[in-house]
Amino acid sequence: MAQKPSIPKGTRDFSPIEIAKRSYITSIIKEQFQLFGFHPIETPSFENSDTLMGKYGEEGDRLIFKILNSGNFFFNKNKINLPKSIDTLLNNSADKIESDERIELNKFTGLISEKALRYDLTVPFARYVVQHQNEIDFPFKRYQIQPVWRADRPQKGRFREFYQCDADVVGSKSLWQEVDFIQLYDAVFTKLGLKGVTIKMNNRKILSGIAEVIGASDKLIDFTVALDKLDKIGEEGVKEEMLAKGISETAIEKVQPLFTFTGTASEKIRQLKELLSSSDVGMKGVAELEFIINTLQEIPLSTASLDLDITLARGLNYYTGAIFEVSAPDGINMGSIGGGGRYDDLTGIFGLKNVSGVGISFGLDRIYLVLEELGLFPETVAPSTKALFINFGEAEAFYCFKTIRKLRNNGIIAELYPDSSKMNKQMKYANNRTIPFVILAGTSEMENNKYTIKNMQSGNQQEVDFDQLQALLK
Amino acid sequence: MAQKPSIPKGTRDFSPIEIAKRSYITSIIKEQFQLFGFHPIETPSFENSDTLMGKYGEEGDRLIFKILNSGNFFFNKNKINLPKSIDTLLNNSADKIESDERIELNKFTGLISEKALRYDLTVPFARYVVQHQNEIDFPFKRYQIQPVWRADRPQKGRFREFYQCDADVVGSKSLWQEVDFIQLYDAVFTKLGLKGVTIKMNNRKILSGIAEVIGASDKLIDFTVALDKLDKIGEEGVKEEMLAKGISETAIEKVQPLFTFTGTASEKIRQLKELLSSSDVGMKGVAELEFIINTLQEIPLSTASLDLDITLARGLNYYTGAIFEVSAPDGINMGSIGGGGRYDDLTGIFGLKNVSGVGISFGLDRIYLVLEELGLFPETVAPSTKALFINFGEAEAFYCFKTIRKLRNNGIIAELYPDSSKMNKQMKYANNRTIPFVILAGTSEMENNKYTIKNMQSGNQQEVDFDQLQALLK
Repeated sequence: MAQKPSIPKGTRDFSPIEIAKRSYITSIIKEQFQLFGFHPIETPSFENSDTLMGKYGEEGDRLIFKILNSGNFFFNKNKINLPKSIDTLLNNSADKIESDERIELNKFTGLISEKALRYDLTVPFARYVVQHQNEIDFPFKRYQIQPVWRADRPQKGRFREFYQCDADVVGSKSLWQEVDFIQLYDAVFTKLGLKGVTIKMNNRKILSGIAEVIGASDKLIDFTVALDKLDKIGEEGVKEEMLAKGISETAIEKVQPLFTFTGTASEKIRQLKELLSSSDVGMKGVAELEFIINTLQEIPLSTASLDLDITLARGLNYYTGAIFEVSAPDGINMGSIGGGGRYDDLTGIFGLKNVSGVGISFGLDRIYLVLEELGLFPETVAPSTKALFINFGEAEAFYCFKTIRKLRNNGIIAELYPDSSKMNKQMKYANNRTIPFVILAGTSEMENNKYTIKNMQSGNQQEVDFDQLQALLK
Repeated sequence: MAQKPSIPKGTRDFSPIEIAKRSYITSIIKEQFQLFGFHPIETPSFENSDTLMGKYGEEGDRLIFKILNSGNFFFNKNKINLPKSIDTLLNNSADKIESDERIELNKFTGLISEKALRYDLTVPFARYVVQHQNEIDFPFKRYQIQPVWRADRPQKGRFREFYQCDADVVGSKSLWQEVDFIQLYDAVFTKLGLKGVTIKMNNRKILSGIAEVIGASDKLIDFTVALDKLDKIGEEGVKEEMLAKGISETAIEKVQPLFTFTGTASEKIRQLKELLSSSDVGMKGVAELEFIINTLQEIPLSTASLDLDITLARGLNYYTGAIFEVSAPDGINMGSIGGGGRYDDLTGIFGLKNVSGVGISFGLDRIYLVLEELGLFPETVAPSTKALFINFGEAEAFYCFKTIRKLRNNGIIAELYPDSSKMNKQMKYANNRTIPFVILAGTSEMENNKYTIKNMQSGNQQEVDFDQLQALLK
C-alpha cells in the first residue's frame, strides 16, 4: 500500500489528549449516574437485524449499517430463492429502480446480511429488558455509555460513529423520575462547570391537547414547527405559515394565547389550563408539568434553569409524556446537548406490554465542543509522566530502572528514556511531553546513591537522595 | 415480534455486576498502563477494508466482519462491472463453487462492502502511527482498550465480540522496553491479587537459529509443535513425530540438548549458547534473552515468575524479537491470559519503514474467568445504593427528596422509591438490591425534622436528625 492510510468518512481517531478530555466528561456523567442509583449495562455492538429494523422509521432503516453474513455468506441457508431479476437489478443504476424492484433488493439484502450495528441505545435496552425480564427487579435503573453507528451524511459535529450516554428507568410511572432526571442534568452540568444551561421541557399530552383543540392531529408537527419561528418571523409570519400548511383560521384563533406565551413557568401553566380546558389529555399533561415545576420550585436547581417550551416536539413518534431537551448557555451556537422523555410502551415492540420508561441522554461530542469553546476543561485532565530518567548507558539505566520501580510502587509515573541517545534528544522528548522533572544519574550520583533532579520549568537542578526525590515528585 | 428477542451468537449482554467486575480489571490495567507512562488512543470500530484485508492471513480475512455499503449500496460506483456468472453463482450451493468462481465472489463482496470491523488493535494502531506520524513524538507509548470482532466459531471463552487491552511502544529498539513490559505484567497481576502467573518468554531469533542449525527453516513450526509435547509423549515420542514430519535424524541429533532443556533460566541460556554457537542470528537472540533475564534477576518480579520456553512460537509470522505469553497459576485450566512480542517492521505494511514496535496484550475475558474461579474479586466491586427512602405519598416523598439531594451532594448514593407502593414491595426492592439502609419518614418524623433509619442486616432502627443520618451513611 503506497498511499498514506486513512479512515472511513465520518469516523475519528482519538489522540491521548482527546481521550483524556472525553474521559473527563464521561467520568463525571458516570459518577452522577451512580450517585442517582443507576447501574451500568452493555449490549453487543451488533444485533440481529430484525431487532433493529422497522424501529426508527424508513429513514432510520436506511441509516442502519448492515453486516455481511460471514463465511460463504450467500449460502448460509443452503439453497436460497433469489429475486429473479437480481442480475438485471445489479447492473442497473440507482435511479432506474422501480419501487417493487427495491423491495426485491431489500429482500436480497436480508439474505446476505442478518446482523446490523446498533443505531441507538434505546432499542437494544428495550430488547435487553424483555430478554432478561426474569432476572430484573423493576423499577430498573440502568445507564449505558457505548458507541452507536449511523450511515448519515457526515458534517461538522455529526459522525458515523459516536457515543451515546443514556440513563433510563423502566417499570415506574412515577413523576418523581422526571424530577430526578432534571436534577441529574443539573448535577452533571454543574459538576462540569457548565453553568447556565436551559432544560427545556414539554409534554406529549399537551401537544395532543393542542391537536384536539385545533381539531387537526395530523397538522400538529406543522403547527409546532411554525410556532417555533415566533421569535424570528413574528406572529403574522407564523400565522401565514400555518394557513399555508392548511391549518384553519378558526383553529389558529382557538390557540391565540400561544402567540403571547411568555412569562414564568407558573404563568405559562395558568395559560395552558385555560387553553386546554376542553381536552382531557391536554389537562393531564398540564397536571404532570405542574407537579414537576412545583417540586423544582421547592428543590431548586444549582446552575441550570428550567423552561417550559411547547414547541419542543423531538421524538414525537414515541414519547408519550415528558419531553426534555437541554440547550447550551446563551451565546453558544450549538444544537441540543441532551434530550429525553417518557415512552409508556418502551418494550411493547418486543412483546412485553405496559412497561413505562423514561430516560435522558447526554450528547458527548457537543458537550466536548462547548467545554472546549468556553475553556472549561481543567488544566490537567489526564495523569501524565512526572519524571523522565535520562539514559546514559547500561549501568546508569540499570540504576535508574530500580529507582523507577520504587517510584511507581508509590504511584509516581516515571519513565526511563529507552535508548542512550544524545542528551539533546532525550531532553526534547521530556519537553515535547511537558514532563515536569528530568532525573540525571551518572557515575558520581550512582557512587553516592544520589540523583540530580532538574525542574524543567525553572531550569533549577539539585542533588538529592531517594527520599528527597520521592518527596519532590509526590 | 412475538418470540422473545435474542442476540447474535457469540455476542453478550453484560449485567451491572458483570460490568462492575470487568471495570475492576480494566481500571487496574489502565492504572498500571498510566503508571508505566503509556497514553490512551482510540480508533474507529470500522476501517477501510483495504486497511485490514491481507494482514491476518487467508484465515484472518475470512474472519473479518464486512459492512455493507450504505444507501443503495450496489450503486455507489454508478455502473459497476459485475462478475458475469454472479446469478448462477448466487444460486449454487457453497460446495459447488470452483476456486476461480470464489475469486469472482470475493470481487463481488469488494463491490458491495468497503468497510470492515476491526479484527485486532495492532493493525489499526500501525495505521494510526503512519497516518499521524507528523503529530507523534517517537518513541510513542500508547495503550488501547477497545472491542474487536471476529467471525470465529463461538465456543466456551471465545466470542465474536471481545475486548483487547494492548500496550505498545513504537520507535525504539531498546531492550529496556522488554524489561518494562515484563514488569508491567507483574505489576498488573500482582495488583489483581493473581499470584503465581508464569511469564513465558522466547525470541524469534532463537527459533531462526534452531532452524539454521537443523537446516530446515520450513520445518520450524513442526519442530516447535512436536517439542512442546515433550511432557506428554516423552523424548522418543517427540523424535518419532519429528521424523514423521520430515525432519532428518541428523538435524534432530544436532539439537539433542533441547530434549533435556530444563533448569534455571541461566542454565538454559548456557545450553542455548552451546547449541546455537554456529548461528549468528541465534546467538543474537540468546544475547537479548540474557540481557532481560540478568536485569530481572537484579530487579525481581513481585509475584510472577519468568520462564524461558523455546517452544513458544505464537505469532511467528510477524514477531522478530521477543515473544511473550502469560499463563495462569498452576492448577487453573485456561489458555494464555496475555501475550505479545516485538515486531521490527510494524508500520511497514502502511509504507513507514524501519519502525520497531514491541507490545503486550491482556486477555480480559480469561482473566475474568480466572479471578472468578479463584474467588479473587473484591466483595464490593461497584458503588451501590446506600439508602433507600420509603415513599409514603407525595408530601413524604417531597420531604425525602430534599434530603436525598443533600446526601448526594455529599457523595452518598441515595434513592427514593418512585411509587407509594405497599411497604412490602418497597422493602423487597431494598432487599433484592442488598441496599444496607432503609429510611422511613412519616408525619411524625417530618414534624420533628427527623428520620427513622433501619439497618437492613441487623433489623435495628433508630430515629436520627440529618447530621446523624449523614454520619451513619458515610
